[in-house]
Amino acid sequence: MKIQKEIDFILAVDALKNVRRRNYNADDSRRENTAEHSWQIIILAQILYPYAKNSANINLLRVIRMLSIHDLVEIDAGDTFLFDEEGMKGKFEREKLAAKKIFGILDEPLSSELYNLWIEFEEEETPDAIFACAIDRIMPFILNSYTSGKSWTEAGVTEKQVRNMLENAISRASDEMDECFQLLMKKCFDEKKLS
Amino acid sequence: MKIQKEIDFILAVDALKNVRRRNYNADDSRRENTAEHSWQIIILAQILYPYAKNSANINLLRVIRMLSIHDLVEIDAGDTFLFDEEGMKGKFEREKLAAKKIFGILDEPLSSELYNLWIEFEEEETPDAIFACAIDRIMPFILNSYTSGKSWTEAGVTEKQVRNMLENAISRASDEMDECFQLLMKKCFDEKKLS
Repeated sequence: MKIQKEIDFILAVDALKNVRRRNYNADDSRRENTAEHSWQIIILAQILYPYAKNSANINLLRVIRMLSIHDLVEIDAGDTFLFDEEGMKGKFEREKLAAKKIFGILDEPLSSELYNLWIEFEEEETPDAIFACAIDRIMPFILNSYTSGKSWTEAGVTEKQVRNMLENAISRASDEMDECFQLLMKKCFDEKKLS
Repeated sequence: MKIQKEIDFILAVDALKNVRRRNYNADDSRRENTAEHSWQIIILAQILYPYAKNSANINLLRVIRMLSIHDLVEIDAGDTFLFDEEGMKGKFEREKLAAKKIFGILDEPLSSELYNLWIEFEEEETPDAIFACAIDRIMPFILNSYTSGKSWTEAGVTEKQVRNMLENAISRASDEMDECFQLLMKKCFDEKKLS
């Protein structure tokens, strides 16, 4: 079959539906999985794209492609909670091996194209990657702000930790997203979701 | 907050994570939900795009945007199983109301832009929509072919029904996808997943 490798790949990535993330759905009913998260940030990128700094220099297709594949490494390497300092050590090396394995299922040039998009996202330097990373970071923050914030309170996440990991990544991508971040931070602090 | 409507929208669409589809994940462990399905077809569109007929006339960004939002109507209207002939009656009218409601959360021009993308997908006439629909139809077919095919056997789906609903939609989009469809149909028939 001419598209056998593509079929092998789509069946392999199906496992992302079984990778659990820390944060909860908007109705607080259960933790979301990484496949759902990947879909939701693709929607968020489309609706916040007009607010990106220098959006004329941002290629929405590349942003969405990055977001769709950026977490495939979690199939092998697992989801590392942003505020788990121990888990964050060696994360990039673990994930690079996982990326080579999963994207290696495909033929060239697609295999390298997806691997390079993943690296670009991780390095967070190009305008596309800066915007994509800000979208990826603000989504669980929005969910925590509008739910009971269990994934933070369970792990004892502090306001300082959230600011360290999110504030710069968001403010350099968009003024309107930064305004949203600051207002929701105040709300979370008032509601004692963060200490 | 300047992006309040966008936040309202992303929280409203979160409910798609709770819409169950008929077919099962690749590991046969549970039925997939529509948010996961939407993500998976976005990946599939990227890897099968080179095989689309007249791919030079297909805009991958528009295809992916259609796929990301095409099932949002299910939040209000529910998932209708492709082989449920009773359920298919009145489906388009039910879903049009649901589309107006969900996309109406956003301001113009984005609200109409997404509504029009949804209609274009449903009408299945433009090159972008023809390719997007073929991707959406072949994905659950692939999952059924590589699992025990429970969602078909539970509902007594026949080979004829599958051919009626999928064959033309797939063959007019891509020769390689059609080859895949024919080979997997034979496999399913040999394995008695279809009668």
